[in-house]
Amino acid sequence: MSEKLLQNIQNPTDLRKLTPEQLPVLAKELRDFIIDIVSRKEGHLGASLGVIELTIALHYVFNTPDDQLVWDVGHQAYGHKILTGRRDVFHTNRQLNGISGFPKRSESVYDTFGVGHSSTAISAALGMALASNLKGETEKQHIAVIGDASIASGMAFEGLNHAGVTDANLLVILNDNAIGIDPSVGALKDYLTAVKAGKNPKDNNMMKSLNFEYSGPIDGHDFDALLKELHRLKHKKGPKFLHIITTKGKGMQLAEEDQVKYHAPGKFDAATGEIHPKSEEHLPPKFQDVFGHTLVELAQQNEKIIGITPAMPTGSSMKFMMDAFPERAIDVGIAEQHAVTLAAGMATQGMVVFCNIYSTFMQRAYDQLIHDVALQNLPVIFCLDRAGLVGEDGATHHGAYDLAYLNCVPNMILCAPKDELELRNIMYTAQLGLEHPIAIRYPRGRGIIQNWKQPFEKIEIGKAKQLQKGSEIAILSTGFIGNNVTAALSLTHNSDLFSHYHFPFVKPLDTDTLKEICENHQHLITIEDGTVVGGFGSLVASFCTENSCSVSVKKLGIPDAFIEQGTVLELQQICGIDVNSLKTIFSSH
Amino acid sequence: MSEKLLQNIQNPTDLRKLTPEQLPVLAKELRDFIIDIVSRKEGHLGASLGVIELTIALHYVFNTPDDQLVWDVGHQAYGHKILTGRRDVFHTNRQLNGISGFPKRSESVYDTFGVGHSSTAISAALGMALASNLKGETEKQHIAVIGDASIASGMAFEGLNHAGVTDANLLVILNDNAIGIDPSVGALKDYLTAVKAGKNPKDNNMMKSLNFEYSGPIDGHDFDALLKELHRLKHKKGPKFLHIITTKGKGMQLAEEDQVKYHAPGKFDAATGEIHPKSEEHLPPKFQDVFGHTLVELAQQNEKIIGITPAMPTGSSMKFMMDAFPERAIDVGIAEQHAVTLAAGMATQGMVVFCNIYSTFMQRAYDQLIHDVALQNLPVIFCLDRAGLVGEDGATHHGAYDLAYLNCVPNMILCAPKDELELRNIMYTAQLGLEHPIAIRYPRGRGIIQNWKQPFEKIEIGKAKQLQKGSEIAILSTGFIGNNVTAALSLTHNSDLFSHYHFPFVKPLDTDTLKEICENHQHLITIEDGTVVGGFGSLVASFCTENSCSVSVKKLGIPDAFIEQGTVLELQQICGIDVNSLKTIFSSH
Repeated sequence: MSEKLLQNIQNPTDLRKLTPEQLPVLAKELRDFIIDIVSRKEGHLGASLGVIELTIALHYVFNTPDDQLVWDVGHQAYGHKILTGRRDVFHTNRQLNGISGFPKRSESVYDTFGVGHSSTAISAALGMALASNLKGETEKQHIAVIGDASIASGMAFEGLNHAGVTDANLLVILNDNAIGIDPSVGALKDYLTAVKAGKNPKDNNMMKSLNFEYSGPIDGHDFDALLKELHRLKHKKGPKFLHIITTKGKGMQLAEEDQVKYHAPGKFDAATGEIHPKSEEHLPPKFQDVFGHTLVELAQQNEKIIGITPAMPTGSSMKFMMDAFPERAIDVGIAEQHAVTLAAGMATQGMVVFCNIYSTFMQRAYDQLIHDVALQNLPVIFCLDRAGLVGEDGATHHGAYDLAYLNCVPNMILCAPKDELELRNIMYTAQLGLEHPIAIRYPRGRGIIQNWKQPFEKIEIGKAKQLQKGSEIAILSTGFIGNNVTAALSLTHNSDLFSHYHFPFVKPLDTDTLKEICENHQHLITIEDGTVVGGFGSLVASFCTENSCSVSVKKLGIPDAFIEQGTVLELQQICGIDVNSLKTIFSSH
Repeated sequence: MSEKLLQNIQNPTDLRKLTPEQLPVLAKELRDFIIDIVSRKEGHLGASLGVIELTIALHYVFNTPDDQLVWDVGHQAYGHKILTGRRDVFHTNRQLNGISGFPKRSESVYDTFGVGHSSTAISAALGMALASNLKGETEKQHIAVIGDASIASGMAFEGLNHAGVTDANLLVILNDNAIGIDPSVGALKDYLTAVKAGKNPKDNNMMKSLNFEYSGPIDGHDFDALLKELHRLKHKKGPKFLHIITTKGKGMQLAEEDQVKYHAPGKFDAATGEIHPKSEEHLPPKFQDVFGHTLVELAQQNEKIIGITPAMPTGSSMKFMMDAFPERAIDVGIAEQHAVTLAAGMATQGMVVFCNIYSTFMQRAYDQLIHDVALQNLPVIFCLDRAGLVGEDGATHHGAYDLAYLNCVPNMILCAPKDELELRNIMYTAQLGLEHPIAIRYPRGRGIIQNWKQPFEKIEIGKAKQLQKGSEIAILSTGFIGNNVTAALSLTHNSDLFSHYHFPFVKPLDTDTLKEICENHQHLITIEDGTVVGGFGSLVASFCTENSCSVSVKKLGIPDAFIEQGTVLELQQICGIDVNSLKTIFSSH
């Protein structure tokens, strides 16, 4: 009944049969549909609710998929997915074998470009637009929808700077809601706020400086305004920039009121918006919270400590530091490159900088880590959150490569703590003063130790630990995944065959212990929550041949392939590193 | 006589004893000094000549090194080096055990931040400035000097965007000469050109939009104007932006007239500026030119081919494609991130994109390569120029890590051709259509084959080649360095002990051949012009232990350390991969 319009829309062609007057009704239905499913199945909520009108208007006005639409990041693309053939599978969103939480080329021709990381849309759409010109398809439009947090990232500026000197049929739509996952920051945000308040005359704006035809700001929830402006822009050639104002979480009161919480609220009551309380009483803490609280604890003792996060104060729990020491904790926005070199600049002045970046986003600042930190051997402390398999966010977000791409960088120390206590203690040790930069990687989610707030202990850098002594086979693990080994061994009949070593340090590698291991075992099995190509296992294997150890090495970890979305357990099963898979492997010996 | 002032300046304290009236005399002496030495010893010329007055004025007005000065990239810092204690060693510039061609912290307290890659200065200086505030050093100034090509890179925008909402004592000086190594491009460049022409009112500018106190443009060769403005800014708190106009190559007529050629002209006549002709008649071609000419040749046949370079049309020889097919060759400026995702966007439309990026700068676009290209398995063709040891540019510019950081990325093909013909043939093969993205790495400088323009042949992806058959020891090389092996073997008495295999593909690795090798040899020696950690040798070693091959593997290549500047031969000697070192190793068996 209430979904009468939406039920008849299989794709945008159906949408275009509606009258403009029907669109607000459709918007209501689409909102309700998203709220209903996300309330039960979880997912990203606020961003998609904020662009319902824009999504409908874009597919209504433009000839998608011939006109090409790129959503930046893609948190906001649920409405797009539902209107482009995926309504009936939308309940599988972010699940194993279901649809991806982000636009994805293999899923639909309407998903013109796979996204997940921020600020790629302008470059991608410009590439499409320049290709269209070369192919003589000069009527085609190419649209990048990008948020105000994402457009402040350097890559977006590079795209704008190039687009402004082309004749590409590119429409950049700035979806300005003053928030990313956390509230937007930076001078550009202040500028946009002034524009919205009418404090900047329209002919004095940055986008005109970059040769764009600029229009806006307009109300992104006003169909009349949107349709009129999009119709006008559809027939304009060249680079165009439309500034629209939206409200994240639009149409759901609680989501509008607490936009950070309702970015991805978990399960909630679809009618009221009330988030279902989780019983967290007897659960171990999240690694994120251990990081956040420990940083504050250390900062109370060491006034040189600074915290830096590129736009993830809530996700990384850097917010605790920001609350406790606002002068000494900085959210630089989506600017990983800047974050790392800023940290390096501070380190030259003796500051002890904890730069917290998700493992997958560290890829954005790889050159800065090599060139500005490692080459100068500045003792910056990188905390790589969400290392390894992250679960439902899928292929774009797994922190699978960090051990491999950091291994090869001279001067780095790489640490993968096995539990919350080790995370705390390596943070403690690092801020005492190291001679090198360090990267500490830990996973998304909960650890294993409820009573985690224990006195600090200094850790010896580069030292492995024997956790179990056995007779034949040595299992070498690094990081949190080592707990799967412990659990699997406890279920293995012949567990006395197995030694188990934990290597908190992938670099420097404890070669003394490794030699001992090789002398006392015939077979080695390495396990890591990361790619098996070039990571911990590769280092161990390489060490063995170089030292003529007559052992075999079996490497377990993430295979040389992109792993899609699912629960962490499901993905561990796919990779063969869950407790049961390990038990089967161990039992077969 | 003519160097009377300069001879008495050991450091900026001496400089500050001069009267303002003496500064133009000093400027003349400093220019002559640089021209004299660079004309004989080679190096970067034009950039430093362009900032002579600025360099003197900065050290004259500010209390360096307490006030902190960061030069972006550092090509322009020769004057700075000479005025800060390195006049008498300046003739060792860029030489082994000499001074670095770039500012470097270990060299001088006046070199506050090591540079080499572009666009880091604002972030670094801001980090220093925020640290100063925290330390209560609120009088200190922190100065970033950045060119107009560098400021258009995304990272610089990130720094500006953050700085604009701080109270940091940061002075960003835009050294606007409308050129990087090649002429600047992009919308920002057009904007700056308009500012210079007085076409933008001063109160309508981008930097004010970003909350900077803006001043300029002023003539960067006018001491009166510079001193007055710098004195004023010295006592201003907060973020400030000064726009100065300079001429690259200033003071040497030919260098002003051909700024691209005189960026780093080689040896020349100090009096006239005439570049000494090199006898190149019987030399093999540069790999760069083989790339450039071959691309044009292929583009004549395949209209889908596009070339992209981030600001290196001359260095990469993409200029040939830009001349031949201006619509199909794009210089995007210093914007590696954008370059890669632009290429991905074009590839979605069936374009065959050759994206040429120096190996060391590919680090800047690592996330884009993983997330936008490899994850979507788009067949972009990356040509990684200046892979391996690059010589005089030193630690910041060696392409040492590419094999390691690309190995671990799923879907990638990695190719390191052994000579010009193989480079041509892999380019030919790639544009015929591959199912995966490919990275083709080749070194800076000349190859070995004069008669390189031979008919194209298709290469089988992933296949190794036996170059020499021996009885005991297998040498496995990848890339151009394999020619050192051939040469060393020809000098080795017992060369019949050695097999030599060339692996053009590091990924996919030819495991069939590798198995054969292991069956027929006891010892393996791997050689690559890249880090031994996680590169080709690591893959081979890892393969052997995983497959229980009872062989030893010795890995040769760049050790796990940053290698400084020197000739390529000297650096190969340090790494033990020059012909003589290899001969010694081989002969010892």
